[in-house]
Amino acid sequence: MLENIHKSIDNSYPEMVEIRRYLHQHPELSFQETRTAQYIADFYKELDIPYKTKVGGNGVIATLKGGKPGKTVALRADFDALPIQDEKDVPYKSKVDGVMHACGHDGHTSTLLTLAKVMKEYQEELPGTIEFLHQHAEEYAPGGAKPIVDSGAIDHVDAVFGTHLWATTPLGVLQTSKDVFMAGADRFEILIQGQGGHGAYPHETKDAIVIASEVISQLQQIVSRRIDPLETAVVTIGIFEAGSAFNIIADQAKLVGTVRYLNPEIQDQIIAEMDKVIKGICLTNDASYTFDYVKGYPPLVNHAEQAQLILEASKEVEEIHTAEEVVPVMGGEDFAYYTLKKPGAYFFTGANKEGNPYPHHHPKFDIDERALPIAAKTLIQAFFAYQHKAN
Amino acid sequence: MLENIHKSIDNSYPEMVEIRRYLHQHPELSFQETRTAQYIADFYKELDIPYKTKVGGNGVIATLKGGKPGKTVALRADFDALPIQDEKDVPYKSKVDGVMHACGHDGHTSTLLTLAKVMKEYQEELPGTIEFLHQHAEEYAPGGAKPIVDSGAIDHVDAVFGTHLWATTPLGVLQTSKDVFMAGADRFEILIQGQGGHGAYPHETKDAIVIASEVISQLQQIVSRRIDPLETAVVTIGIFEAGSAFNIIADQAKLVGTVRYLNPEIQDQIIAEMDKVIKGICLTNDASYTFDYVKGYPPLVNHAEQAQLILEASKEVEEIHTAEEVVPVMGGEDFAYYTLKKPGAYFFTGANKEGNPYPHHHPKFDIDERALPIAAKTLIQAFFAYQHKAN
Amino acid sequence: MLENIHKSIDNSYPEMVEIRRYLHQHPELSFQETRTAQYIADFYKELDIPYKTKVGGNGVIATLKGGKPGKTVALRADFDALPIQDEKDVPYKSKVDGVMHACGHDGHTSTLLTLAKVMKEYQEELPGTIEFLHQHAEEYAPGGAKPIVDSGAIDHVDAVFGTHLWATTPLGVLQTSKDVFMAGADRFEILIQGQGGHGAYPHETKDAIVIASEVISQLQQIVSRRIDPLETAVVTIGIFEAGSAFNIIADQAKLVGTVRYLNPEIQDQIIAEMDKVIKGICLTNDASYTFDYVKGYPPLVNHAEQAQLILEASKEVEEIHTAEEVVPVMGGEDFAYYTLKKPGAYFFTGANKEGNPYPHHHPKFDIDERALPIAAKTLIQAFFAYQHKAN
Amino acid sequence: MLENIHKSIDNSYPEMVEIRRYLHQHPELSFQETRTAQYIADFYKELDIPYKTKVGGNGVIATLKGGKPGKTVALRADFDALPIQDEKDVPYKSKVDGVMHACGHDGHTSTLLTLAKVMKEYQEELPGTIEFLHQHAEEYAPGGAKPIVDSGAIDHVDAVFGTHLWATTPLGVLQTSKDVFMAGADRFEILIQGQGGHGAYPHETKDAIVIASEVISQLQQIVSRRIDPLETAVVTIGIFEAGSAFNIIADQAKLVGTVRYLNPEIQDQIIAEMDKVIKGICLTNDASYTFDYVKGYPPLVNHAEQAQLILEASKEVEEIHTAEEVVPVMGGEDFAYYTLKKPGAYFFTGANKEGNPYPHHHPKFDIDERALPIAAKTLIQAFFAYQHKAN
Repeated sequence: MLENIHKSIDNSYPEMVEIRRYLHQHPELSFQETRTAQYIADFYKELDIPYKTKVGGNGVIATLKGGKPGKTVALRADFDALPIQDEKDVPYKSKVDGVMHACGHDGHTSTLLTLAKVMKEYQEELPGTIEFLHQHAEEYAPGGAKPIVDSGAIDHVDAVFGTHLWATTPLGVLQTSKDVFMAGADRFEILIQGQGGHGAYPHETKDAIVIASEVISQLQQIVSRRIDPLETAVVTIGIFEAGSAFNIIADQAKLVGTVRYLNPEIQDQIIAEMDKVIKGICLTNDASYTFDYVKGYPPLVNHAEQAQLILEASKEVEEIHTAEEVVPVMGGEDFAYYTLKKPGAYFFTGANKEGNPYPHHHPKFDIDERALPIAAKTLIQAFFAYQHKAN
Repeated sequence: MLENIHKSIDNSYPEMVEIRRYLHQHPELSFQETRTAQYIADFYKELDIPYKTKVGGNGVIATLKGGKPGKTVALRADFDALPIQDEKDVPYKSKVDGVMHACGHDGHTSTLLTLAKVMKEYQEELPGTIEFLHQHAEEYAPGGAKPIVDSGAIDHVDAVFGTHLWATTPLGVLQTSKDVFMAGADRFEILIQGQGGHGAYPHETKDAIVIASEVISQLQQIVSRRIDPLETAVVTIGIFEAGSAFNIIADQAKLVGTVRYLNPEIQDQIIAEMDKVIKGICLTNDASYTFDYVKGYPPLVNHAEQAQLILEASKEVEEIHTAEEVVPVMGGEDFAYYTLKKPGAYFFTGANKEGNPYPHHHPKFDIDERALPIAAKTLIQAFFAYQHKAN
Repeated sequence: MLENIHKSIDNSYPEMVEIRRYLHQHPELSFQETRTAQYIADFYKELDIPYKTKVGGNGVIATLKGGKPGKTVALRADFDALPIQDEKDVPYKSKVDGVMHACGHDGHTSTLLTLAKVMKEYQEELPGTIEFLHQHAEEYAPGGAKPIVDSGAIDHVDAVFGTHLWATTPLGVLQTSKDVFMAGADRFEILIQGQGGHGAYPHETKDAIVIASEVISQLQQIVSRRIDPLETAVVTIGIFEAGSAFNIIADQAKLVGTVRYLNPEIQDQIIAEMDKVIKGICLTNDASYTFDYVKGYPPLVNHAEQAQLILEASKEVEEIHTAEEVVPVMGGEDFAYYTLKKPGAYFFTGANKEGNPYPHHHPKFDIDERALPIAAKTLIQAFFAYQHKAN
Repeated sequence: MLENIHKSIDNSYPEMVEIRRYLHQHPELSFQETRTAQYIADFYKELDIPYKTKVGGNGVIATLKGGKPGKTVALRADFDALPIQDEKDVPYKSKVDGVMHACGHDGHTSTLLTLAKVMKEYQEELPGTIEFLHQHAEEYAPGGAKPIVDSGAIDHVDAVFGTHLWATTPLGVLQTSKDVFMAGADRFEILIQGQGGHGAYPHETKDAIVIASEVISQLQQIVSRRIDPLETAVVTIGIFEAGSAFNIIADQAKLVGTVRYLNPEIQDQIIAEMDKVIKGICLTNDASYTFDYVKGYPPLVNHAEQAQLILEASKEVEEIHTAEEVVPVMGGEDFAYYTLKKPGAYFFTGANKEGNPYPHHHPKFDIDERALPIAAKTLIQAFFAYQHKAN
């Protein structure tokens, strides 16, 4: 059967590309992706596969119950886009100004829809159940995965698999990890409130720019001195905004940034240390502050057993010449919530488009569409491997 | 005669206010103040006092040659406005969106025009010559004073006096200095060029925000350690702009600021030290930079003898109850160019409007108009004192 | 046979303690440990086991060739002491002022000597050869291991094992790793040369204390921003010495510190980044510097296969209730040179003395002597496990 | 009479030198200068001029009451030495190991003693009274001036004059000021208490060296941002001591330094700002601290009228070719207490020894002894000028 499924997937390639390009031209921002959700729902309606909409927000889950007994496995694809202006010169360029599928979620969706269409043909012979989990809002915390999990939608699921088309990994390469695979990624905003005044009279002010600069300088010590050197932590300030005139001392400075970590146990330590730094420096300057820290997605930890299934599944996919375990990727991914709840594993499907060096979230980001059938095959192989192992 | 002049000035108060309010409603930005120049020229035309326009730009100089021999003294008033939105709730509020006489130059102009009108009546008895020097563009370096001086317009002048209506000094108080009265004021822009990248991968970037923060931290040492502690220097960063997203490391950071100093000899030292700091920190980070330093107005140094004349003149003005020598004011003023060229002195005429605490350049800045005749009387007293002394 | 060996080791416990305490009372500093070497040599002479002295310095290697064929395995114990004043109140306290076995090398030596005495009895039945490798100078880089390896002394050896009695790990616990087990540990000294002067005239000086403080501040960024967050690096300044009088600005500042890392590939990057920081900050201040960086021991990387043998061996040692793989220890150890050359593994033998919380290198450091037979048993079990596996 | 006095002083030159050299060879530290006090007392005893000893400590005051009516004027000379090893190669080198007259107080004493001897001859004709005020302990706060003033010893005095032989000012030059002449000079010690530990485990420590470095970095802002730029302030750290081993994180760091200021009103502000900086940085690091601040001598403020007398007096001294008003000197001087209590002025008598560039407090410090009679003549001229003016 699997051989046939692979062939069916190959035959579906033109449709796969068509769907992906349609979605690419019609991107929607996180939490606003209602038309895409409708598109997905319509697709399942057409296939006569039962589905639920509005799962945890704009999520859509279609259920293909096989003719044979087995486990229930969710295959997840996210479908939101980004607030980036598409700068590619291709016919399938985004038609929405300032919005772009710059992370490949269009491909994820196309892969899963096409796989569903293929598997519908094999429903009778299918062991167990496939839940085609179309998730909204992966790009913007708190994301779509958490409300989907909270809604109980995967309570009955036995395992979850998912993949990301990865633009900087060559075609034919699969990457995963048996432990932490992607980082915890948080967002914070620090507002230093000093006291403004004339640039020539610093002693009558509390110079928010100098204070914020010292905060940044001191924050370096969190990683360099206060976190166990065997742990991984990053504290980045991405935005520094302060002041309006060259000769006026700024009363406020806004710092916006991100924290990355792999071990959930150090997350609260980092927050506490940051607060101590900001508080101390503000005390030093008689200034006040607000510190808003938004915990984002936790680290994505693969289950070793499911990651092993992925590695084994990859051997059955002809196009994959290399399947490797890699060190954690510092980006975040709300697939993390699924593996916190259920056994599961996430992997990268190499999708580098030859000659296109642009990474995810770049205005010229693109993928090699030949990665889509590879992703589909690996997912379904993993499904079967899991069913096999469960028996 | 002087008693009569004072009376004439008092009688002109309604017109003084009217002119000031008209100008207040029709402000023009530095170097664009052509209508105001026309207004001034028309005024002198009406008075039948000969004048020159387009002096060093939009400057207007009217010449009242007295019937008796004497020295030639220039009395200066500036007439440009600021890019500030008028937020006062008064009938004479600015009619130009985003432009406002937020520094009192409307009052300076009204004072000088009215004084000219008064003095025209006393032309026969007048010893020497008054040059009514209406200067454009004081608010924006390189300013109007320098081109006026460079044009040769004051080559034949023996002395120069000028005043600033000062909103934070009480009515009836005159302030001046026998030495440095106002600071040198420069502007600079530092552009740190690092290398951007993903917020989770700092080691692949050169973090412009961290680099710029360290530059700011190090710049503190210029004043604290490198400049003679007996000298006065201020290095202020007024604007810090960097970054566009919380999770992207900024490739550029822009710092814009001002330097103030009293002793011209340390100006170049400050610039050199700043350059050393920026260069060193950038070297530390493999980053590059541009450092644009625009020398603004030099320190305004009063001539002791002329300042003494101001102090003496103030005793003859009934409304002035206090005339004091003060420590230098850290703001800049391009009257500095006149006293570099000719003997002269500048002074502040207290103009605080009761209940209005707003300083110069504030959207709610205003003055007590009763300061206008005080300014006029002090200027003309100084003129006569100078003539007297010269004989 | 192994059961009997264990019994023999247990029976040797009094002698083991006696030897350890004798050595504890007669400690010798690294590279000066000639009497200890003589003591070891005499011991083997007495046992009639052939040995070589002055191996790579003060090293002693005794060779017990078994009566049966097999592999050659080196068991290593180091024997130098530290420049620390013994502050324990025990009968076997150091008799040498300012020198102390504050790291347990006395116990290592006693363990290995006693094990040799026991194994001599089993020589006929012994498969392969045991090299009892007594190494000098572990405490002070460049150490004794490197010259021993360079001398060719382990060229013929098939594998190397060694243990450290570990005072902060409970008795009955064994710890090891299948990969990096201990860190690379380097030493550096930075000498900032500014220009001294009167404390009241900073502008006439180059303040070495301020410069060095900024160097320290900037060095934090190496770990926080420049090294891959997935790597482990520590840059510590242990000594800051500058200045002689409260009112004199120091011309020199001396910073002495250590660098730790796990991945040899980042060692040179750290050095280069440190140099860049020091150079940049000195440039900022017109100061000069010297930066002496002494590469110490490389990271100790266990071979996974040999580490596995240790873990298996530990199961045969009755007193070991827990054998665990641990994250790397940030201390350095020149056992690293052996595993760079030959297959091998290093492990910690828990030796915490109840009620004694003092860590290695503390003036009150001590060990639970019952750890000595545990170490001996684990080493000989590992030897046999290796022989077994090799066949 | 004055002409004769000058001649008498000139004739006393050999004795002046002899006394100075004797004292130079027998220096005594501040508060321990009992033999020198005895020497002075014996001198007055020999002269039959009445004197008091143990004034406010080791002070000696001799009173020469003139035969004519007039005011009482104190002439002050200090007589303590410094804990510096004399490195000059001269016959009159210090005979006391580690103690040296490295500031010229030997010369001050010799000048005053010799002047007393001369003036004794003119007692009959002398208007008013001279108090020869020999003060101990100028070099070490709280100094000798304060207890002398507190003892009431100058309550009856009308004016006080004093001079410092100044090694970096050329012979023949006199320097003084009509306002602040020397700075307020304080001493402080900051002890940062962190938590020590192994250099490889910064996260288990509170790194006192890093904390202290940040304190120093932040302290720069006090001068650069928090003190009015028109004021003069210096905060110098002269000593940084921390750590004992390259691989051990220091638990303590000691910073010792000095503060200089000219305006007493900012002294407490500086202390408060320093405390805020230290407190804030320690809070940032969970560390604690002690901050001992010892207020030293206040700024020495000359009275304008008395300074003017000095300038006039200098015109009568043939050897003085230049008498100038100078900007304040940042060193401290407890003569400050006298002018806080009584009208008075202090001045520098140029005493640079040709070819000797070494400043005060240097091991090779020396003076041109020809400055002694110049100092004596200026002091007595000032005395007479004061008497003259008082009538």
